[in-house]
Amino acid sequence: MRPSGRDLSEMRTVSIETEFTKHAEGSCLIKMGDTHVLCTATIEDRVPPFIKGSGLGWVTAEYGMLPRATNTRMRREAASGKQGGRTVEIQRLIGRALRAGVDRVALGERQITVDCDVIQADGGTRCASITGGWVALRLAVNKLMKTGDVISDPLVDPVAAVSCGIYAGQPVLDLDYPEDSEAGVDGNFIMTGSGKLIEVQMSAEGSVFSRAQMDQLMDLAEKGVAELAAAQKAATA
Amino acid sequence: MRPSGRDLSEMRTVSIETEFTKHAEGSCLIKMGDTHVLCTATIEDRVPPFIKGSGLGWVTAEYGMLPRATNTRMRREAASGKQGGRTVEIQRLIGRALRAGVDRVALGERQITVDCDVIQADGGTRCASITGGWVALRLAVNKLMKTGDVISDPLVDPVAAVSCGIYAGQPVLDLDYPEDSEAGVDGNFIMTGSGKLIEVQMSAEGSVFSRAQMDQLMDLAEKGVAELAAAQKAATA
Amino acid sequence: MRPSGRDLSEMRTVSIETEFTKHAEGSCLIKMGDTHVLCTATIEDRVPPFIKGSGLGWVTAEYGMLPRATNTRMRREAASGKQGGRTVEIQRLIGRALRAGVDRVALGERQITVDCDVIQADGGTRCASITGGWVALRLAVNKLMKTGDVISDPLVDPVAAVSCGIYAGQPVLDLDYPEDSEAGVDGNFIMTGSGKLIEVQMSAEGSVFSRAQMDQLMDLAEKGVAELAAAQKAATA
Amino acid sequence: MRPSGRDLSEMRTVSIETEFTKHAEGSCLIKMGDTHVLCTATIEDRVPPFIKGSGLGWVTAEYGMLPRATNTRMRREAASGKQGGRTVEIQRLIGRALRAGVDRVALGERQITVDCDVIQADGGTRCASITGGWVALRLAVNKLMKTGDVISDPLVDPVAAVSCGIYAGQPVLDLDYPEDSEAGVDGNFIMTGSGKLIEVQMSAEGSVFSRAQMDQLMDLAEKGVAELAAAQKAATA
Amino acid sequence: MRPSGRDLSEMRTVSIETEFTKHAEGSCLIKMGDTHVLCTATIEDRVPPFIKGSGLGWVTAEYGMLPRATNTRMRREAASGKQGGRTVEIQRLIGRALRAGVDRVALGERQITVDCDVIQADGGTRCASITGGWVALRLAVNKLMKTGDVISDPLVDPVAAVSCGIYAGQPVLDLDYPEDSEAGVDGNFIMTGSGKLIEVQMSAEGSVFSRAQMDQLMDLAEKGVAELAAAQKAATA
Amino acid sequence: MRPSGRDLSEMRTVSIETEFTKHAEGSCLIKMGDTHVLCTATIEDRVPPFIKGSGLGWVTAEYGMLPRATNTRMRREAASGKQGGRTVEIQRLIGRALRAGVDRVALGERQITVDCDVIQADGGTRCASITGGWVALRLAVNKLMKTGDVISDPLVDPVAAVSCGIYAGQPVLDLDYPEDSEAGVDGNFIMTGSGKLIEVQMSAEGSVFSRAQMDQLMDLAEKGVAELAAAQKAATA
Repeated sequence: MRPSGRDLSEMRTVSIETEFTKHAEGSCLIKMGDTHVLCTATIEDRVPPFIKGSGLGWVTAEYGMLPRATNTRMRREAASGKQGGRTVEIQRLIGRALRAGVDRVALGERQITVDCDVIQADGGTRCASITGGWVALRLAVNKLMKTGDVISDPLVDPVAAVSCGIYAGQPVLDLDYPEDSEAGVDGNFIMTGSGKLIEVQMSAEGSVFSRAQMDQLMDLAEKGVAELAAAQKAATA
Repeated sequence: MRPSGRDLSEMRTVSIETEFTKHAEGSCLIKMGDTHVLCTATIEDRVPPFIKGSGLGWVTAEYGMLPRATNTRMRREAASGKQGGRTVEIQRLIGRALRAGVDRVALGERQITVDCDVIQADGGTRCASITGGWVALRLAVNKLMKTGDVISDPLVDPVAAVSCGIYAGQPVLDLDYPEDSEAGVDGNFIMTGSGKLIEVQMSAEGSVFSRAQMDQLMDLAEKGVAELAAAQKAATA
Repeated sequence: MRPSGRDLSEMRTVSIETEFTKHAEGSCLIKMGDTHVLCTATIEDRVPPFIKGSGLGWVTAEYGMLPRATNTRMRREAASGKQGGRTVEIQRLIGRALRAGVDRVALGERQITVDCDVIQADGGTRCASITGGWVALRLAVNKLMKTGDVISDPLVDPVAAVSCGIYAGQPVLDLDYPEDSEAGVDGNFIMTGSGKLIEVQMSAEGSVFSRAQMDQLMDLAEKGVAELAAAQKAATA
Repeated sequence: MRPSGRDLSEMRTVSIETEFTKHAEGSCLIKMGDTHVLCTATIEDRVPPFIKGSGLGWVTAEYGMLPRATNTRMRREAASGKQGGRTVEIQRLIGRALRAGVDRVALGERQITVDCDVIQADGGTRCASITGGWVALRLAVNKLMKTGDVISDPLVDPVAAVSCGIYAGQPVLDLDYPEDSEAGVDGNFIMTGSGKLIEVQMSAEGSVFSRAQMDQLMDLAEKGVAELAAAQKAATA
Repeated sequence: MRPSGRDLSEMRTVSIETEFTKHAEGSCLIKMGDTHVLCTATIEDRVPPFIKGSGLGWVTAEYGMLPRATNTRMRREAASGKQGGRTVEIQRLIGRALRAGVDRVALGERQITVDCDVIQADGGTRCASITGGWVALRLAVNKLMKTGDVISDPLVDPVAAVSCGIYAGQPVLDLDYPEDSEAGVDGNFIMTGSGKLIEVQMSAEGSVFSRAQMDQLMDLAEKGVAELAAAQKAATA
Repeated sequence: MRPSGRDLSEMRTVSIETEFTKHAEGSCLIKMGDTHVLCTATIEDRVPPFIKGSGLGWVTAEYGMLPRATNTRMRREAASGKQGGRTVEIQRLIGRALRAGVDRVALGERQITVDCDVIQADGGTRCASITGGWVALRLAVNKLMKTGDVISDPLVDPVAAVSCGIYAGQPVLDLDYPEDSEAGVDGNFIMTGSGKLIEVQMSAEGSVFSRAQMDQLMDLAEKGVAELAAAQKAATA
């Protein structure tokens, strides 16, 4: 019934190739099916002004899509002179999600910037960015711990995200683009590896949904995030 | 226990003054306690390029805060040369929320722009914007129906929104600023007057939450939106 | 003869509601007939770089119109990415006007920013902004004097402004929008409560005027400003 | 008493070199003492959207200063990404002033853009721009009349401008920079060659003025503009 | 003597992986040692306004670097609101270079946009972009020929580019970053597969060079481009 | 054969009028035939952040064209909100070229900004800017040496630039606009007075060229730069 032939609760194939670029302190290329996102983590000693001197660390994120990551070419945001509303919204989400999994005291007064750049898009790029972004963050923090700059591990529990939605009247896990563009309701679920909730966004455009449907999507999300957390663990072992 | 002395499930006083400005096709000043938002609805015959010729209507929203709506003066976005990320995110949310309650076929090929400008802020401005924005939209649509430009009512069910969160370990309804700035978890719940869900956003920064807590907040939200829908009905009767 | 039925030298009804918002150090909603402007004054300890260390104070202004303050919706300046030429010109005028009435030594090294936001426009918004802006400034300075931060009153004489013009061949006081859009000549007259001139701008587009006409407009302006100064006095008593 | 040794009612030496550049339809380099402005007039067949099809012409102006036209280098506006408030205000003034002297029916549906670029500044650049801009406009219109594109002369009366002010307590004509930076009151007077008023701007910062002083400045301005109109006539004979 | 241990006239290992992304009409990931650039070609039916109706085609290019393509993170151009001078200069160069190898009549009235995004940088990104960009262009044109939209091959001769410079007093081929940052003179040589010159840029900062040195660099460049043309041929066979 | 009737190796008439403006530390109006560029040099004590404290000086350049310097009016870059790609490319070139002729240790920790503003364009504006810019720089440095702020002359060898190209199949020196717009190949050659190379840019669009042609253009350039260096010497003697 799904365009890809997947079962309702079946994820796309996940692959995480770590250390994809040589300069970043942590990096990976995450593939959720045909959605490919390059995630890099950069450690800097400076922090934003509002926490200077607090001893606390900061994690932030930026998001971008290459112009031809999509089926038709999109205008390059650097050329149009500003980041679009969608981009801004997504990168704020990624930053919040990753910060929720960080012990900022343990990190110490430094900033880690996670860049998520979509090489190829087929739905679910924000979720892939969070899941892959956490891997890049994990690898960068590993370096800080290896050098002794950080003693106590600030990443206590992995952070991963998956989208679920009502497609053709059925709740489905991990929407790809053909599903996403048709779904009446879709949601992004950001959770920890141990199943706690960090952020939930469910949205209907030109439709509504019930609490019962919300619960069905939550169930699917729990299954999906567990699988993603296992993939993160395998990639960073 | 709440700074305002309200009960856990008690809303702030709601007031909706309609026709607050004379030029707009619909307008109101909504007050949720000390949060005051001026909402105006503008009808235009043109629609965005992507639906030209489709016969469908469009509803969109813009959001702004006056520089001294807040405790310390914020830089005027027109002067800084762009809308901040928070502004963009909020106005996209308002637009999606209002569109979800519109029968775009019945509206016909025209656009209604709802401007939500915060005169005074004390938490919950995005929810107040949605609730008041719907009232302005309702009044503007009434004019279209009175003139016969629209025959079948495109607004079948009111749209309203409320925030809930975990404050000092307790689930509370309709957070004001002192609560919002301390809350470990907060959510925005957008629903129809008949209790259907349009959008749910729950978020924790530096914390996590459980499905049980999510359910508690949902219960509060249902109570709050029912009260708001009643206020909308009274204001537009 | 005037669209509103007013006499040639008759002002619109003036109302000034002080403390319209709770956060600003001074605020008012001024109404000149159907022109409604919200004015807020913000006190900050920092001053512009060019007077740092001089011991002198600074007063500056910003001006904006809500998108639907006018008969047809104007594009939001924050969205278009810059303040238009008209906006820039007006806010520079308001700032100059208010500064002319301030003893900057007595004010001491601090800045007061007066924000003038037009809620509803019907002609004469810049004059209403100056008149109402002075009231907000007065209230903010009162607070500084009450706390003892300022000892000697820096506001020796009120500042108010009114527009006059040649409409249908006749000199008229306090133009509303229908008059303003037809006037061959119009001028803005900024004066002190004691009748001294601060700034005079008279302009004709596609027309010219004589010194005799200039004198007639000056006479009307003196009458108008005297009435406005009385209203300011009553509002801040 | 004046820094330059001039009499109170003495203008700086005026020189107008026409056809200073070869591409423009009309051009001149106007020198008011050490203030040098290059004015060019460009004829285009297109008009702004709001008069398309009206049969009316349009005249507009743009203003700029070379970065080192002044004593210390100013940031290039093209590099800083926007025209400053002062620039915007001045070019709107130049445009209004020139349009006031144009019979837009006689001009026909075309646009003339007058660019005023300050090569060297020593006070009074906006007035020099108007006076020189009119010469460029005159020369461009002459071409249109020579080719028969325009039959009836749309420039019935020259437009010129001069600044006057109160310097060291005395009314003086044609302020140079040392006077301008010290003047308690200064004004710009835009008039026709036959002595009619187009625009008057008088302004005091940190000071006030009386109607009697205003009349003294008007007297000086009439003398100055008459001399400028004679220079314009000589240059375009 | 070279940091990499290469001979003076030895290129880095070249690899070209075609069809790296699924959406673009042509794409490749080109690697010149540790410099990795993703090149995609997009075919569109529209052309720039200045050739509309001419029957001629157009080829243009855009260039970007991911923020962490380099050793320290660079600010994202989309976030800073404009493309830097270096970016603009490079993408204009790539566009000119590729157009020089295109028969625009044979291409027909359509536009091909080549996006070159640097995933990892180690010197020579503009040359890699041209060489890889031509491969993406070749693959896109192949599709047009396969469908019959283009009959006569518009790509008569490959276009490739290499940098050469004077490093430690010696002429060297294909500078990597450690060489590039130390080189007294460096040049970019853009040539056709048959050895004709398209563009030559040689530059010294804080140094000068002789015609004899220029000739030595030209000799190296001819060798390098011949090897690159062979790699292009192999990749698109 | 050339539109101007010049011989193949004949330059346009060069004139350099020094001290064209009174405020700049050095200035000239350079005319290469009908190409007129105003060059000013500004000395400032501050240097860019990346060399602060190094004891080294910096020379940078900015370039602009007045809107009607060309045959049809170009949009003012300050109004369009950014410098175009061509402008950015040219001013980077001018800056690099001038720096190559400066002993930055001898200059000391100060910055000289050379502004090149095209008053009238007829081809070769970037070369005229470099040649005239060096004269302005020379005059400014003379002042620093006269006051004793600089002891050892940092300008050891003049820097000048000329364009050459293949026009109608023939190599020609110093292209004017009619030649430039038709040339199959054109190049800019930046050299020192003693004949050393600083930067060479040769480019073909829709064409190619050979090493033999490159040599012919180099020969012409050497002749041209020698003449320009003599003119620079005469102007600054």
